Amino acid sequence: MDFSNNDIIVALATPVGDGAISIIRISGDNSFEKVNSIFEGKINLNDASTHTLHYGNIISKSGDVIDDVLVSVFRNPNSYTGEDSVEISSHSSIIVVKNIIEELVERNVRLAEPGEFTKRAFLNGKMDLTQAEAVADIINSRTEASLRGARNQLDGMLSQKIESLRKELIDTTSLIELELDFAEEDLEFVAKKKVIKGIQKIVIEIEKLLATYSFGRVVRDGVNVAIVGKPNVGKSSLLNYILKESRAIVSEIPGTTRDVIREEVSIDGILFKLFDTAGIRLTEDAIEKEGVKRSRDAVKNSDVVILIDEVVNGIPKELFNELIELIDSERIITVLNKLDLVSDDASPKGTPLEGSARQPNSDRSLSEAEMAGADVKISVLNGTGMGELLEMLKMRSLGTHSFTEKSAVINNVRHYDALSKAKLDLTDALSSLKSGLSGEFISVNMRAAEDALGEIIGVVTTDDILNNIFHNFCIGK
Amino acid sequence: MDFSNNDIIVALATPVGDGAISIIRISGDNSFEKVNSIFEGKINLNDASTHTLHYGNIISKSGDVIDDVLVSVFRNPNSYTGEDSVEISSHSSIIVVKNIIEELVERNVRLAEPGEFTKRAFLNGKMDLTQAEAVADIINSRTEASLRGARNQLDGMLSQKIESLRKELIDTTSLIELELDFAEEDLEFVAKKKVIKGIQKIVIEIEKLLATYSFGRVVRDGVNVAIVGKPNVGKSSLLNYILKESRAIVSEIPGTTRDVIREEVSIDGILFKLFDTAGIRLTEDAIEKEGVKRSRDAVKNSDVVILIDEVVNGIPKELFNELIELIDSERIITVLNKLDLVSDDASPKGTPLEGSARQPNSDRSLSEAEMAGADVKISVLNGTGMGELLEMLKMRSLGTHSFTEKSAVINNVRHYDALSKAKLDLTDALSSLKSGLSGEFISVNMRAAEDALGEIIGVVTTDDILNNIFHNFCIGK
Repeated sequence: MDFSNNDIIVALATPVGDGAISIIRISGDNSFEKVNSIFEGKINLNDASTHTLHYGNIISKSGDVIDDVLVSVFRNPNSYTGEDSVEISSHSSIIVVKNIIEELVERNVRLAEPGEFTKRAFLNGKMDLTQAEAVADIINSRTEASLRGARNQLDGMLSQKIESLRKELIDTTSLIELELDFAEEDLEFVAKKKVIKGIQKIVIEIEKLLATYSFGRVVRDGVNVAIVGKPNVGKSSLLNYILKESRAIVSEIPGTTRDVIREEVSIDGILFKLFDTAGIRLTEDAIEKEGVKRSRDAVKNSDVVILIDEVVNGIPKELFNELIELIDSERIITVLNKLDLVSDDASPKGTPLEGSARQPNSDRSLSEAEMAGADVKISVLNGTGMGELLEMLKMRSLGTHSFTEKSAVINNVRHYDALSKAKLDLTDALSSLKSGLSGEFISVNMRAAEDALGEIIGVVTTDDILNNIFHNFCIGK
Repeated sequence: MDFSNNDIIVALATPVGDGAISIIRISGDNSFEKVNSIFEGKINLNDASTHTLHYGNIISKSGDVIDDVLVSVFRNPNSYTGEDSVEISSHSSIIVVKNIIEELVERNVRLAEPGEFTKRAFLNGKMDLTQAEAVADIINSRTEASLRGARNQLDGMLSQKIESLRKELIDTTSLIELELDFAEEDLEFVAKKKVIKGIQKIVIEIEKLLATYSFGRVVRDGVNVAIVGKPNVGKSSLLNYILKESRAIVSEIPGTTRDVIREEVSIDGILFKLFDTAGIRLTEDAIEKEGVKRSRDAVKNSDVVILIDEVVNGIPKELFNELIELIDSERIITVLNKLDLVSDDASPKGTPLEGSARQPNSDRSLSEAEMAGADVKISVLNGTGMGELLEMLKMRSLGTHSFTEKSAVINNVRHYDALSKAKLDLTDALSSLKSGLSGEFISVNMRAAEDALGEIIGVVTTDDILNNIFHNFCIGK
């Protein structure tokens, strides 16, 4: 950032829109002085105790009352940022807010950068980096599960795990460095075994954490689900069924294109983003090339693909083969719909029960093999198999993790990359140890792994890391 | 309202959207007890002093941390509502907010009705009715002028005026009632003259207030301006010019119909809502009937109509005649555009400078009379006469009032109606006095006028009045 961390900063901290109250947040040395210069109340804010509220008027330079407000006073270090801070609670009018902020800006208070309050909280030791990132996650959370994940992270669940791994690593490294000093055969042998065991233990712990990533990411960002299939096999009906069955519809996002419709839905607290590829085949076709491209992109960005066709048709092999070129076959759920159109006995055949007009295929007898080929057989019409399908959707998305358990989970690509790097460094250290390289080399790898872990919590950091993290925050946080 | 004023109520007080902080407001006896039952901090909120802030966690029934929050404590009567009140400042996530409110609702805290906090403030004597209404106006204000108007009203400018009129009225009424008791000839004569003079003075003051209404309403709600004219005479160019020239574009509201486009713009702090009637003539036309109806409605709802044509055509008499059937002629500004197409000398004629391809009329010589018929002659192309037009627009909208002066202004139809009623009652009283009716009759009229004034500030009130006022508030205010 271009600005000094010693400036006094100001920002609107509440959303813009219809409401009763807006909060304007100010932080930095002499915040009280600045706000007091536009405040008319019973008390001089410079004399106010921390964590007290004061009613009064905000006065413009021309002497007019801008608004009557409540001012909260927080004295360093007992504030969110760790600095002297003030919160002005005004009527929620964007004009009132603008006028108050303008009065402060005229008195050399600077508009805050995105996330600058939280950045200062980090720089002043009020929280570590994973906790700062969790603050943004809490604000952006749209489901119970994502909120709980962020909450755990803000409570230090991940920090504590990383911190303990880092301590073990430091202890192990010191053993190597001890060995550098007292290079006796026996000691070396004992130490080497202990060091190898120590590093292996840490690597296993890191691998466990890495394995939580796909789960953590899904909990935080939701699951992208593409529904693929030929026209009129029930894609839209399936989408509508899921929307209706799920307990909380989060939002309906108008399709960015005519060809891919996206809906968001919360199933057991997990956000599912459902893309209906609206009958567009995956095969190339001159006229529908753009639509095909969009469908392919939707599939590539999916965590799970539901490939759907009718029971009487069986799973469309051509489409399936195209899909596995785009994504891992484990992520495809094959579904056969319109089970209601075939008879109930074990080797289904016979006449359709209804909807025969829409049946493209007149041969309705199915081989066992065809039926067995699908993961689930359903009837959107009468709900058969839908519970099974939803369970499978959750299973494929979440794996065996449970999002209710309180444990360290990573959900952030920055953490994933740093842990991967630490693992690599430690694996290097292990092979160096095994191949008998001298302690100095091994120590370098160990220190690198330490730094990688340190980056996660912010013990080791750079301006680039900080800017990357905080520029995604909203202003006022 | 169906609910008791003794309940503890809760609502989100900040807007919903992207932001850092949300405020949940709770008010009523035992608020501290209720919030304390879900709060885990260093202090029991029941023991907290008024106007203090406390950091801690909000805990769910199942013992999980919902969020870490700051709780503000306000002890009766030192709160917005005048009751014991609490504000919970949480992370701004709609899920966090929902969870916290749900915990309180489970403990028999009730969701607040719209405006219920302010209604309680009124009922507890923290503000009068005009001030309560001003709170809503401040929140809804979209320009500096509307904010200033609401601010003056919240500061009691109108209340004081009404209150002083009401006191004068009460004093005058008591003179009449005195006369009822001591019915002596001389005293009656002296008293009658004094009473008539007193009532006349009050009527004049009421008339002055009533005269501020059109100004007050314009300041509060903005000015509706319809731009009317034949196709291709420059309606859209004029609209775009005004949008560009004005210092603050408030918003662009997509036309609800294809035929009427609405844009909002702030000129010197006044909100102008410009309707471009998009070339639809006012005359009936079978095919465009619906469009014509919309244009007519736009004109009827306008405070000012700009009737525009080209200099070479002159003011279109037919359209003008249609307009004055819909609105008062004083509200029409006639404008001749494309002054750039005629030569500069006093009796303009000659060849067009440019745009001749779009000229529907090949005869470009104008009579003095034709030029004189318009209020303003302009060229949107080169800006000639535009300053004059904007001035005229403001003049016609605001009259001679200035929105910077601090004086009692009414901007609310409720106040207008009550003042009108008071005036009527007083006029009745005056004619009764003059025709020598006995004091009892006059006294009834005087009391009715007193009540009408009392209704404005809420000295006299009914559930209907209160419900009408507060159900237009947002929830949380």
